[in-house]
This record gives sequence, C-alpha cells and structure tokens, in this order.
Amino acid sequence: MSAPTRDALAPAPVDGALASFFADGAGHGETSEHRELWDALSRAAEGGKRLRPALFHSVYLALGGRQGEVAARVGAALELLHTALVVHDDVIDGDDVRRGVPNVVGEFSARARERGHEEQKAVRYGQTAAILAGDLALAGAVRTLALCGAAPGTVARMLDLLDRALHLSAAGELADVRLSLDGDGDLATVVSMEHQKTAVYSFELPVQLAAALAGAAADHEAALTRYAQLVGVVYQIRDDLDGMFGDETVTGKSTVSDLREGKCTTLIAYARTTAAWPQIAPVLAAGTADEADATRVRTLLEECGARTYVEDLAVDFTRQARQSVAHLPQAPLLDDWARAVTRGAA
Amino acid sequence: MSAPTRDALAPAPVDGALASFFADGAGHGETSEHRELWDALSRAAEGGKRLRPALFHSVYLALGGRQGEVAARVGAALELLHTALVVHDDVIDGDDVRRGVPNVVGEFSARARERGHEEQKAVRYGQTAAILAGDLALAGAVRTLALCGAAPGTVARMLDLLDRALHLSAAGELADVRLSLDGDGDLATVVSMEHQKTAVYSFELPVQLAAALAGAAADHEAALTRYAQLVGVVYQIRDDLDGMFGDETVTGKSTVSDLREGKCTTLIAYARTTAAWPQIAPVLAAGTADEADATRVRTLLEECGARTYVEDLAVDFTRQARQSVAHLPQAPLLDDWARAVTRGAA
Repeated sequence: MSAPTRDALAPAPVDGALASFFADGAGHGETSEHRELWDALSRAAEGGKRLRPALFHSVYLALGGRQGEVAARVGAALELLHTALVVHDDVIDGDDVRRGVPNVVGEFSARARERGHEEQKAVRYGQTAAILAGDLALAGAVRTLALCGAAPGTVARMLDLLDRALHLSAAGELADVRLSLDGDGDLATVVSMEHQKTAVYSFELPVQLAAALAGAAADHEAALTRYAQLVGVVYQIRDDLDGMFGDETVTGKSTVSDLREGKCTTLIAYARTTAAWPQIAPVLAAGTADEADATRVRTLLEECGARTYVEDLAVDFTRQARQSVAHLPQAPLLDDWARAVTRGAA
Repeated sequence: MSAPTRDALAPAPVDGALASFFADGAGHGETSEHRELWDALSRAAEGGKRLRPALFHSVYLALGGRQGEVAARVGAALELLHTALVVHDDVIDGDDVRRGVPNVVGEFSARARERGHEEQKAVRYGQTAAILAGDLALAGAVRTLALCGAAPGTVARMLDLLDRALHLSAAGELADVRLSLDGDGDLATVVSMEHQKTAVYSFELPVQLAAALAGAAADHEAALTRYAQLVGVVYQIRDDLDGMFGDETVTGKSTVSDLREGKCTTLIAYARTTAAWPQIAPVLAAGTADEADATRVRTLLEECGARTYVEDLAVDFTRQARQSVAHLPQAPLLDDWARAVTRGAA
C-alpha cells in the first residue's frame, strides 16, 4: 500500500517507543556481529509505513482509549511483528531487495561477497543474518506487548490475540509456498490463504488489540473484527491487482514479478477455471516471464473475466466491511480507512 | 550431551506445562498447514533432553524456591527457546536430520518430494516450514515466560534476561557462520563465540532465571552466573572434543561432520597456530573429509598439542567454575552438575 493509507489516519505515536526499543537492545551485545544485526534490523523497522500501528491507534482513540504511553508500546509491538515477518518472508522468498534497497539478506550477502566468498556461501550468510534478525524482532514484539503497562488481564488477552495472529500467519505463509509449488489453489483457497498470511496480523490484530485495550464490549469487538477481516482481504486483492495491472510508479510494485514467481493470486486462481488457462499456465510454469509475456497475460486475464471478477470481489467485500460497522459510532472513521485501503473500490 | 547430565539433577516438572502449551496452540488454526507445523514443532520439542529446565529447576529448588507451577512454566519457556534455536539452527546449517531422525526441514522436504517436486524446491519448502515453526516456538517461549504467574517486577526482570540471552545467541550464531566461512578465528574468539552462541542461553540464563524467581541476593546471583558461564564453555569444549575424539556410540555425535563442515572449533583454532596447520587446512577447506582424513587429522591434533591444550582448558575452567561457587550452600549440587556436564574434567 502507498501513501494514502498512512495519511487517512492520525499518525501513530510509535516512533518514540521504537527508538527506546532499539536503544535498549543495543546494550545487549558488544561484538561487531551484534552491532551489525541490530543496525540492520533497526533499518528494516524504520522503512515501514506504520500501517498497523496507525490502524490500531486510530481505532483505539475512536473507542475512547486514553492510555497514550501504553498504546505507543502496543503500536511498536505491531510494527516489530510486521518487521519480523517481512524479514523472514524475504528469506523464504529468496529476495535480497525490498523497497528498492538491499534488505537484511542483501546487506549481509554483499559483505560476504566483498570478502571474496562465492555466491552460494554469500547468500547463505545473508540468510543466516536475516533469520537471526527476524528472531530478535519477533521476540521483541512479544516482549514489548508483555511489558506495555496495561492491566495484567488485558496483557494476557492481548498476548493471546498476538499468538493467534502469528499462528495463522505462519500457516498462511506455508500454504502460500505450497500453492505456488503445487499450482492447484482454487479461488476460495487463495482468498483464505491471503487472509491468514497477511490480513489477520495486519488488520484483525490491530483492531482487536485496540478493542481489548480500550475495554470495548464483545459485540463491538466482533463487528470491528469482521470489518478488519474483510478490509484485509480487499487489501490483499488490491495487491494482486497491482501486481498485474498497477502503475509501478504509483504502487512501487513490479507488474512482472508475481508472474515470474508463479505466485498463486486471486487472478490466477480465477483464470485457472477458464478457457484462457492453457495459454497462461506455461508462462507461470516457466518462471521467466518478461514484459511481453506480462502484457499477453494481462490481456488474457481481461478477456477471460478474471480482472472484472476480482475487482467486483473487492467492491463487494468493501461494501460488506462497511455494512458490518455501519451501526457503530466509529463508522465514519472506518469508512475513511476502508476507502483509503481499497482506493475507492466501494 | 548425553544421559548423565539429565540424571544428575532432579527431573524438571516441565512436561505438563509443555503439554498445555501445545494443546492451547492447536486451537489457533484449522488448516492442514497449521496442523502439520504444530505437530512437527511438538515432535521437535519432545525430542529434547530437558537439560535447561533441569538446571533451572535444580538451582531454583536449592535456592529455596517453592512456586512449583510458576517454575514449571519458566522451565517450559526455556525448553521452547531451545527448540526454536535448534530448529532455526538446522535451517542455517542446512541439516535435515537431528538425533538420527528427520528434523522439521527433513519432514517437510520429504513431503514435497513425495508430491514429485525437484530437490531444490523440496528443500526450500522444508526450510520455509522450519523458519515458521521456529518462529512459533520463539514467540511461545517469550509468551510463556510473560504469563508464568510470577510477580510483575520479576516477570519484567526475567524477560530482560531472556532477551539478553537471545541477543547474544544470535550474535554468536552469526559469528559461528562467519568464522567457518572466513576461517580466521583465534582461540579466544572461538571460545567467546561458543560462549555466546550456546552457553549463555543454556547455562547462564537458567541459573539467572532461578535466582530471579527465588529472589536471590545480587552477589549470590553473580556467583551463580560466573559458575554457569564457565561450565557452559566447558560443555562446548567437550562438544568440540567429542566431535573429533569421541565415541560415536556413546555421544551420538559424528566424529567426521565437524571436519567436513569446516567448523571453527577450539581444537582447530589452536592447531592453526602450530606447524601441523598446513596439513590440516586443506582437509577443512575441501569439505569432503572421510574417515581416513579424520583419523589423520586426529593424529595431527594430538601431535601438535591441540588435544592436550583443549582438554587442560576444560579442566581449568571446571576448577574455576567450582571455585566461584565454593562459598555457597548450593556448592555440593553445583559440583555434581559440573562433574556430570564436564564428565569428570576436574
């Protein structure tokens, strides 16, 4: 997601809590390895858009929450969780660049290359560093939430919510890799995988933490969770659409790489059931798609109805999301957020 | 380490707390991916020797600790931390077997192979599962400690101790990979790396948590920490000796694989400064050592004095460890433990 999302909500006062976190952790080691790992993690955390803390914080304020310091730490925990998952995701996907700059894998593998090591060993060194840096962020996220300063019962409830989100995210990530490998996901399976892998921790978890910390009623929390679930899926569907039909200069996302990676998106899952599939399948299987292949696949996805179907799905889910919270006093804020995330899909 | 260690101490009542942990987590997902991940992690946690909970629990009891349920959860957190680090370590080392059976990587890569996928993709799938399973164990360790039921100030102190241990372990692991790659570690560097990578979380952390939970005085905790630091290093040195001169049927550890992996052990670091080095270096660099190479290197390590030097180092550190706690009422217990871990080195 790009700039509109961040602007649609009050910026989360999370930078101070993150700065404290990184200042504290710097004291935990004295070796060059520790310094390098911690610096790389700090840069990875800095690069984020604070989408999750912003959602958490806006909903928390809208629910009448007033524990500013506590909320800042919860927001920092969300951003650290996101950082951990992104850093490990890059290892899993074999990526060495993120947002146009070398990621943790890229930084450390470049250092090994500079010391004269061959490619395979250099990549292994980079991936080692990224696994370890992600571990520090993940443990840091749980610890930051545990020590956020809320009442003990609330902390326990929030830790359970975080744990559930992490479990679903891990299962969704494994499903994503398996679906790309086996190439047999239908649309419902792909939507469910995208929901688990990203939407739960990025959307449901922030609003659930906000509700828990603000002490919202159970039905209020349930409506917010339903809203977040639907908006989260729309966010992922928009990501699929951006990865095929987007403007790279606006989204920052390549419109060839999903195809090259054989990514199992909602567009692909739909196309698999149509007459266009025999022409699309070989491009995915080859794993070498270029701009010309992408242009051809784009036309096929439009002709077979995949683009329209998936765009309509986003509109429908967004409408459902807005309906699920229409009765709440926070509806206008949530409408703004849904509009920003889905870029006017409804 | 083999059986004597476990027998030397009271068994830690940790199995119930671990069983609760795995029962709770099973409810966090409904997909086959979640079930497979969680089952694999559960098996990985079952296979351990409970060395760290046993050390924690024995010292806690010896310090007069009486919070049985809380202690069981702290022990479970230690075992989960160990499981997480082992599972991720196997990814980093490219191993697919542990204790003679397929590890998480091995289990999942075998499944991908059964579905007809080529080797490289199958391994990637296995490594993905192991990164994710390790993440669940790590977050679970921090959460279990956070919710152990001790007083809030004690929980915060224990979370800080865990955090420090994790940082040092990560930095030590990265140093281990770098030293094996660059092949330039001197003895002090290797001892420091081994201390950070394993001894801190396996020895220092359990006694520090015991002291924190039992409310031990600062000087008491400092003496115990010093003891654990030294015994932990001896444990690693014994591991280096086992990996070269041990009896595989007793230790369960191959006496060729350290050599084949080019592992930077204390024996190798010492040998590097001697006239035997030009004959040892090519075997390490080749990465293809067989039993004949290992026999030759063993003779060289004895002739150049590396074996004697490293064995003496273990004896010396063990003596220092016992001295550091000789004034404490827990000295007899700690003597037993040191003897078991170091197998009579002092």
